[in-house]
Amino acid sequence: MNATALPLVILSEKFAKLPGIGMKTAQRLAYYVMTMSEEDARSFAEAIMNAHSSVHECSSCCNLTENDKCPICSDSHRDMSTICVVESPKDITAFERTNEYKGVYHVLHGLISPMDGISPDMLRIKELLNRVNSGDVSEVIMATNPTVEGEATAMYISRLIKPLGIKVTRLAFGLPIGGTLEFADEVTLYKALENRNEL
Amino acid sequence: MNATALPLVILSEKFAKLPGIGMKTAQRLAYYVMTMSEEDARSFAEAIMNAHSSVHECSSCCNLTENDKCPICSDSHRDMSTICVVESPKDITAFERTNEYKGVYHVLHGLISPMDGISPDMLRIKELLNRVNSGDVSEVIMATNPTVEGEATAMYISRLIKPLGIKVTRLAFGLPIGGTLEFADEVTLYKALENRNEL
Repeated sequence: MNATALPLVILSEKFAKLPGIGMKTAQRLAYYVMTMSEEDARSFAEAIMNAHSSVHECSSCCNLTENDKCPICSDSHRDMSTICVVESPKDITAFERTNEYKGVYHVLHGLISPMDGISPDMLRIKELLNRVNSGDVSEVIMATNPTVEGEATAMYISRLIKPLGIKVTRLAFGLPIGGTLEFADEVTLYKALENRNEL
Repeated sequence: MNATALPLVILSEKFAKLPGIGMKTAQRLAYYVMTMSEEDARSFAEAIMNAHSSVHECSSCCNLTENDKCPICSDSHRDMSTICVVESPKDITAFERTNEYKGVYHVLHGLISPMDGISPDMLRIKELLNRVNSGDVSEVIMATNPTVEGEATAMYISRLIKPLGIKVTRLAFGLPIGGTLEFADEVTLYKALENRNEL
């Protein structure tokens, strides 16, 4: 017999639709919501609606923001001539944590993936080309993941931008810092060897 | 620089408050909400509010339900004279999956844990005693987890109920089915030995 109250089953199903959340975890989360105060539950529900309604893409780099331009594109201290192209807004957070990159970004909101039915026109490539064509850009850094889709997307975009006479670079691949040779996979090791630097 | 839109940061923090969700997963979930349709986001938010406002404790067994009595307590085919005492509503789902137990339940909504400041009067023990005192109960099965808190709670409740002349039993502990001796911990093995049955 299903002894769970229907509204709880519905909430569990909503949680289970989130990425990486299985049915058991979803059920646990739904029960947890029951232990929250009325106020906490309401503010959680409101946070979902608020994020969804007030956040949209930056008119310049397509990062998510609640303003017309994101904080990075609005910052006059950033180097607007260097654009780092990433798959998703999360990747910007990762780069900003390094505190080293002073240029700006462009978020593609996905990678080209014929298997998943994602074609180039579904990404923010047109917006990137518009920025590049504006004439103030000197370098475009392709910072997509080192996966089949990431590589394909990097190649596709570089072929569009290079003919415009703009430098297109790719992130370096090699051994991760703190990693050991013993546990590096063959492809990483091959890349580390291929891209070796003189000391 | 924090490049994340504020409503997204707020939503991430809400997700991170859920059990087992770290800051990175919370951020991933918040970004996922952004990719949901307006309608899906709204129904997710509503499911949270609905579950919270329309679900409450069964007037008999304290399981969560949207009615006065939960489906199990309302089912005339269940044996009302046997009460299985569990920590949380999730445990009922686990027992119901066995399709073997025909009695009813009682949900404590926690375990006695002085370390966490949870005293007996914060659990639904008074409600259990009221049911037992009604006179129709022949057996109370203590089905709390085999942890320090679970054992202490089982002992505490059995000392209250036994004097009333009612049979109080405890779940059997031993080797899990499909498990191997080699990987059984000492305490489980000791319990399996102690509670051995004649063939």
